[in-house]
Order: sequence, then structure tokens, then C-alpha cells
Amino acid sequence: MMNMHNNIPIYGVILAGGWGTRFWPLSRSQYPKQVLRLLGSESMLQSTVKRLLPRIPPERLAVVTNASQAELIHQELHRKGWDGVRIWVEPQGRNTAAAVGLAAVTLEEEVREGIMAVFPADHFIRDQASLLRGLDVGANWAQAGCLVTFGIPPTRPETGYGYIKQGAPLDDQGRACRVARFIEKPPLAQAQEFLADGCYSWNSGIFLFRPDVVLDACSRYLPDLCRELDRMRHPENQASLEEIYQRLPSISFDHGILEKAENVVVVPVEMGWNDVGTWEALHDLFPRDGRGNVKEGRVLDQHSQECIFWAQNRLVATIGLENTIVVDTPDATLVCHRDRAQEVKDLVTELHRQQLVESVHHTTVERPWGRYTVTDEGPGFKVKRIVVDSGKKLSLQVHQRRAEHWVVVSGTAQVTVGQELRLVSSNQSVYIPPKTPHRLENPTIEPLQIVEVQTGDYLEEDDIMRLDDDYWHPDKA
Amino acid sequence: MMNMHNNIPIYGVILAGGWGTRFWPLSRSQYPKQVLRLLGSESMLQSTVKRLLPRIPPERLAVVTNASQAELIHQELHRKGWDGVRIWVEPQGRNTAAAVGLAAVTLEEEVREGIMAVFPADHFIRDQASLLRGLDVGANWAQAGCLVTFGIPPTRPETGYGYIKQGAPLDDQGRACRVARFIEKPPLAQAQEFLADGCYSWNSGIFLFRPDVVLDACSRYLPDLCRELDRMRHPENQASLEEIYQRLPSISFDHGILEKAENVVVVPVEMGWNDVGTWEALHDLFPRDGRGNVKEGRVLDQHSQECIFWAQNRLVATIGLENTIVVDTPDATLVCHRDRAQEVKDLVTELHRQQLVESVHHTTVERPWGRYTVTDEGPGFKVKRIVVDSGKKLSLQVHQRRAEHWVVVSGTAQVTVGQELRLVSSNQSVYIPPKTPHRLENPTIEPLQIVEVQTGDYLEEDDIMRLDDDYWHPDKA
Repeated sequence: MMNMHNNIPIYGVILAGGWGTRFWPLSRSQYPKQVLRLLGSESMLQSTVKRLLPRIPPERLAVVTNASQAELIHQELHRKGWDGVRIWVEPQGRNTAAAVGLAAVTLEEEVREGIMAVFPADHFIRDQASLLRGLDVGANWAQAGCLVTFGIPPTRPETGYGYIKQGAPLDDQGRACRVARFIEKPPLAQAQEFLADGCYSWNSGIFLFRPDVVLDACSRYLPDLCRELDRMRHPENQASLEEIYQRLPSISFDHGILEKAENVVVVPVEMGWNDVGTWEALHDLFPRDGRGNVKEGRVLDQHSQECIFWAQNRLVATIGLENTIVVDTPDATLVCHRDRAQEVKDLVTELHRQQLVESVHHTTVERPWGRYTVTDEGPGFKVKRIVVDSGKKLSLQVHQRRAEHWVVVSGTAQVTVGQELRLVSSNQSVYIPPKTPHRLENPTIEPLQIVEVQTGDYLEEDDIMRLDDDYWHPDKA
Repeated sequence: MMNMHNNIPIYGVILAGGWGTRFWPLSRSQYPKQVLRLLGSESMLQSTVKRLLPRIPPERLAVVTNASQAELIHQELHRKGWDGVRIWVEPQGRNTAAAVGLAAVTLEEEVREGIMAVFPADHFIRDQASLLRGLDVGANWAQAGCLVTFGIPPTRPETGYGYIKQGAPLDDQGRACRVARFIEKPPLAQAQEFLADGCYSWNSGIFLFRPDVVLDACSRYLPDLCRELDRMRHPENQASLEEIYQRLPSISFDHGILEKAENVVVVPVEMGWNDVGTWEALHDLFPRDGRGNVKEGRVLDQHSQECIFWAQNRLVATIGLENTIVVDTPDATLVCHRDRAQEVKDLVTELHRQQLVESVHHTTVERPWGRYTVTDEGPGFKVKRIVVDSGKKLSLQVHQRRAEHWVVVSGTAQVTVGQELRLVSSNQSVYIPPKTPHRLENPTIEPLQIVEVQTGDYLEEDDIMRLDDDYWHPDKA
């Protein structure tokens, strides 16, 4: 029998490339599900990192994401002091086989003595200790040359997940088994059989293996992917990662490799797992009132049953609803029958097709120096509230076509306008003419809050030239 | 047979004292249903006046309302140039018998040769010509000493209305009948009988009578009301209208007088009437899509059926709902099952109990000079967008505890600050320190739009001292 506790080095790869369309309107393409704070004060990504830290130090962790999310991911890690966590930016999303392949090629030199473990960035796991115990069990089998998956003992006949049928146990206690087969989302009757049978697990999307083992499987089952990945090994090709990615097949790791490979092992781990796939998941994760409703934020309900009401500062009043999801954000509201929670994805496709800004970002946008909220706009003007965190500054910048009026409403700003540098206190204002270099800083220990009124004939975010900038951008990585 | 067309002078009394709680969140206590623009560009009140004008000139029209709505009612009339319409302000709402009594006492001297007609301010009538024909028929019977009601031939077994059973016809064509009896909101089976029977009408709330006749009925059936009204006849009591009103019984005109009187006549008038009592009414009044949904504003729906979706500028996305009402406003959203539309009233009672501002006014407040919208607020600051109509000016005013920064975003302002008077153009700003008299005017023919940032430790509307003011207030009436 193998040791459960071991010292095998584990390198963690967190896949954070999606945006969780089914959590619209809370998720947006520029504010993906993994940075949502659905469950407490930490984002899904932060919770994912945090629960691994007892076993995997930050310098052995990497997040795979795409260019448009990289800065946000960096902020999330930076806020927790996890700057040692690496961020690998895919030029475009090509599904999980490509992301795992990228990680394996990148780690293969470094991970001579250990294994790599792949985690989704946006799942919920209640029982950290069980996860960590499972990692040790899985690491042993991974080091022995297996492709290891984590299976979740099912608690309901879920038809939205993939299932794994366990084969012969590999130890006395059944802590690991061979995989007999994978079954894609089954119909209800079959899911009920699986639940009753006891030999089936949900596929959690957590995998462990040696880089060389997974690359070997890749060369066997996805030779096209493998050939392209191979080009990444040659430094002269680094510049053409974008070109390589364009040619990668878009296929999931499960479907492209695991389902075909022989040496696949499942470690069943009961750990309070939930993939938080749709709004429907919140009905399981959150406390409910006496009529089965989940309520968050300013909700006033009369006589509703089995609903999910998710509000923020605006008032949401509900009367006599059943099995209905209501999600309110400052610029968009979703009202959806619970049986249709999957279809939020189609809705977002439609928003995207209509090029509606509500699919892209929120009215409040997080920035490395704080955040801004567009509070009002109309022809020729836009109003923002800007919060600058203590000690932070925006870039030194110029706008060609807009003027800005800044009114400090709390704290003290250090403001550069042209050649002039001055302190501006609460209830004072500054005018920034077009074409004038300017910078906003908060030199104090208190937060700084200003109201900015922009005027001009063109007020988009791309009218900005940054002359000097403190912050991390993907191209600086 | 009496003449259908006649020259009997008709004095119109429009009852506009309620606030239409069942239309929350579109109606608010300070923005009642009668000023909503549900059906086109005119408010319910404006439509009510307009459809009477061919028969009743403005100087024979009066609106009965309460102090908190009087200014708004004045604006609604003024915008249409109907300044001749009188506004009678009740110190408090005491139901319709009191309002009708007040009107009768006020008109009794003036209406020696004619009759008075009472109309709700917030009903929809599609067929104006039928209404006007009905008025002539009813005026004849009113002048002859009857209490006349308008009955609406029912089109469905509605359980939310009062019914009138028609008795003996008073002319050959059945254009007027004696009233056999009044029936309050009947159970469904009875409503179905009434519909099938053909001798029942809905009670429309439109009444015609001579002031002396109704006051006579009042003295017989509501002697308490009559005694108090009598005190109004003596000018020395004018100052104590408030005190008189406190003692008036709160009872409806139907219940307190009509149901008891002998000389009651019903004029059945088919005129496309709808009392627009709840959101449910919109399902009848508005065009529906192929799945039976009424949609207004920025609504993106997938697969819903028989719903009412009422949005404004924010995006409302809906999936797979049935018989659901969704009403979105800038600060509050209602989601309600259609069968529960009546219960919006209870919800508003609860909002009121919790003293939530969302029951009182909108983020946008109409003013005689234009309007303002609170677009953002937080500790120590508030941001408004202010629109001043061409040629209008705000009062000359002083605030004790707040400073204001004004940025003109379109048009040109004439600004008084202390002793100084100057023109401020688009993209310029002005600072108003606390305790400094100031005034904002729009001397141009273009609308003026400014963004106002208030700062200070107290930012409520009551920190205002008006030194000079152009506009009508109830106490100037």
C-alpha cells in the first residue's frame, strides 16, 4: 500500500480562462465568474488558491488565463500578497486540452521530481482537509505514471455532469480505483441508476499527472495538439504563441485524452464539492428562508417559494413567485425560471450578438489603483465616481478630446495638471483641459474619492495616452 | 323622450387624490398614477382633461387633490396651457364622498343652471365620442333631479369591480335606466351570471348630478358629512378647512350615498373603458407579442409567455417566465405573479412602514422649471443631473450646510453667486460655497443641463431657504 502522506512536490495549475456566462449579469466577459465574490469576501479564484496553499506554495502555482482577464487575475492574486503565483496568458481560449498541454510543456523541465495538478478556478469545495488528503493519495498514483482524476460521490441524479464508473480498486480502502469508463451527461433514468449503484462518481475536473506522462498521452491521442505544443519548446517560436494557438484543436482534456487513455485512475473524494455552474447552484449553497428562498441584498418578498433572489443596493420587490431566479445589478436585471438556468448562456450569446455593453463589463470597473463607476452619461458628458486606494496613483495620461472636472468628495488628492502639482482636499475641484498631461494620486492613508465630470464630443475609454504607469499589464509579464 | 344633444352647462370635477399604489414602482406617493405616462406622451390626468374639453371648457373644470400632489397637478395642467382649470386642495384624503361634497359646496352658487360631473383622473377611455354622447344623456337626467352613474357593459366576469343592476328603462332606446341595485365585488360564479344576464354594468366611477341634489342626498344619507360641509359655507370657517376635514367621515360616494338613494339612474356607455387598476390591466391595453407578452423598454426575452415586461433604460433579460409581471425603474424592480397584481398594495404598505424612500419618490423629480435626477450619493456627497427648460429659472436660494459644484454639460446657464451674475457655457464650472445666495437660470432657447456635485455633512432637500421664487405652490393658490 502506498503512503497517504508524502512529500511529492505538487505544482498546481489553475484553469481560469472562461468567464462563466451562466452567471450573467453578475459575471461579464471582463469580470468573469472566477473573480465573483459569491460566497463571502473572497473571489472564487482566491478561495481556490487559498485552499491549496497548505500543500502547494505560491511559487509552484500558476494560473492559465487569457489576455483580457490577465490584469484582473493579477490584481486578485496581488491583493492577497500572492505575487509568486505565475500567470500564463493564452492568446485565445482553446479549451482545456490546450491549456493543460501549455502547462505541461511549460513545467516539464521544472517538474523532474514531482507532479502537476490541474484545478478549475471557479468551483466550491467546502472540506479543504479532504481535498488535501485526496491530493496526497492522487499524487502517489500520478507519480507512479497514472492519469489521476478526482471523482465526487454523487448526492443527486444530476444530468448536467459527466460521470466516471469506478473499476477495480487499487488499494484496500478503495481510496483509488481504475476507471472503467467515462459517461457524458446522462439522461435522468441513467443518472438515477448511477446514484443507486454506488460505483459512479461525478467528474470534478481536478486532474493529477507527471508532465511527461500527460505529454506522452497527448502524443498518442491528440497528435495534432502535441505537434503544435512541440514548437513551443523551441525558444525561437516563443514569439509565435499566438500563431501556434490559432492552429490548436479546441477539445476538452476529458474528451481528447482521458476517455481514450488506459492508465486512468479515479480518486473518489467526498469534499463538499459544487461546480457552481449556474444560478441554480446557489439554492444548494446558501441558507434558505422558511419558504425555501435564497435572499441576498435588498430584497422584499411576499409569498414567494423556492426562489433565488440576488440583489445589491437597488430594491428588488417580489410577490408570489415560484422557482424563479431574480438577479439585479446596477445596469441589468435577469429574471429566469429555475429550470432554465442553463439558458442564461444562450441569452448572453444574444447580448454579445447585439454588441450590448452589459455583456462586457459592469458599471463599476476594478483597477489596480482602486475602481471607478460610471454613474451617469448622456450626449457630450459622462460622470464617474473614482476611488483611489491609499498610496496608489493612476497613470500620467492625456486625453485628446475630453476635458475633466474633478471634485474631491472625500480624502485628499495629489493632482498633476501640466507642470503644476498640488494637493486638493474634500470640497475642492480641479479642471483638466483636453491635451493636458494629468495624474491623480492618493498620497494619504485614507481612501480618496472623487466625482469626475467628463465633457467632450468623444468620451470612450480608448481616448487615453499613458505617459507613465505603475501597474502590471499582460505585455509586461 | 329627452334630447340627446343639449346645452346644459356641465361643470367637471376630476378626482385626483389617490396615488395608485398598485402601480408601484412606477407610481410613488409623490408621483401618483394620474401623472404616469403609461399610454403615450400624455399623463392619465392630461388625457382625462383632454377628452372632456369638447364639452367642458377649462374654466368649468376643477381637479380635487391633496397638498402633496397639488404642485405636480398644476404642472401637468400648465404644460398643456390649461391654467384655467381650478385646483382644489383637500387638507387630507377622506375618500370620495368628502371630495364630491367639497366640490358640490364649492360649486353650488356657481352652478345654478347646470350640473356637475365627477370623473376619476386615472381611467382609460378609448372612445371619446361615446363618452361625450353619454354625458349629454346623463346631463338631462341629472338636471331632472336624478343621481346619474355611468355603467360599463361588462366584457369579462371581472371580480374586482362593483356592478350595477339595471332596472326599468327610462327611454325607448335604453340609454338610461333606473338602478335596481349595486353589487360590490362579486365572486366569480356571480360575475359570470352578471355577464351572461346582460342587465348588469360595471360601476365606472363617473357621476352626474345637480349640486343641490347631491347635497340634499348627502343631508339625508350622510348627515355627519353634511353638517361639516355646511361649516364651509361660512367664509369665517375657510381657515379651518383642515380642522373640518379631520372630522369628515371617510367613506366612498357609492357606498355612502348612491347605494342608499332612490333617484339613481344608470347610463350604460360602451366606450372602451379600463380603470387601469393594476399592472394586470396593461395586458388588455397593450399590444402583445406572439407568445402573449407585453414588452416595453429594453427587454430581451427568451421563451416567456403571457407576461408583462416594463423596463426603461436599464436592460431587463427574462427567460422562460409565465404570467409574470416585471417592472423596472432606476431605483427599484418589481417581479410579481399576474394573479397577485392586487397585492402590490400590501407591498407598498410594507415599504411605507419601513420608511423606504422608494415608496415616496423617483430618482428623477419633476419641477416647474425642469427636473433633477439623483445619479449618485454616498457619505458626504450627492450628485444630481439638473435640466432647466428654456427660459426657466430656479429660486434664488441659500443652503446652510452644503457647497455645490456645477458643471454645465450642455447649453448655457446664467448663474447668480452672491452679488455676481455671469454666463456659464458648456464645459465650464461654478462653485457655490455654503451660505451664499445663488440662482440657476436658462436664458436661452436650448435646454440647459448641468451636473451638480454637492458636498457637506447634511445633503437633504430641506436645507434650502428660498429668497425669491417664480412658481406656483399650493399655499399661493
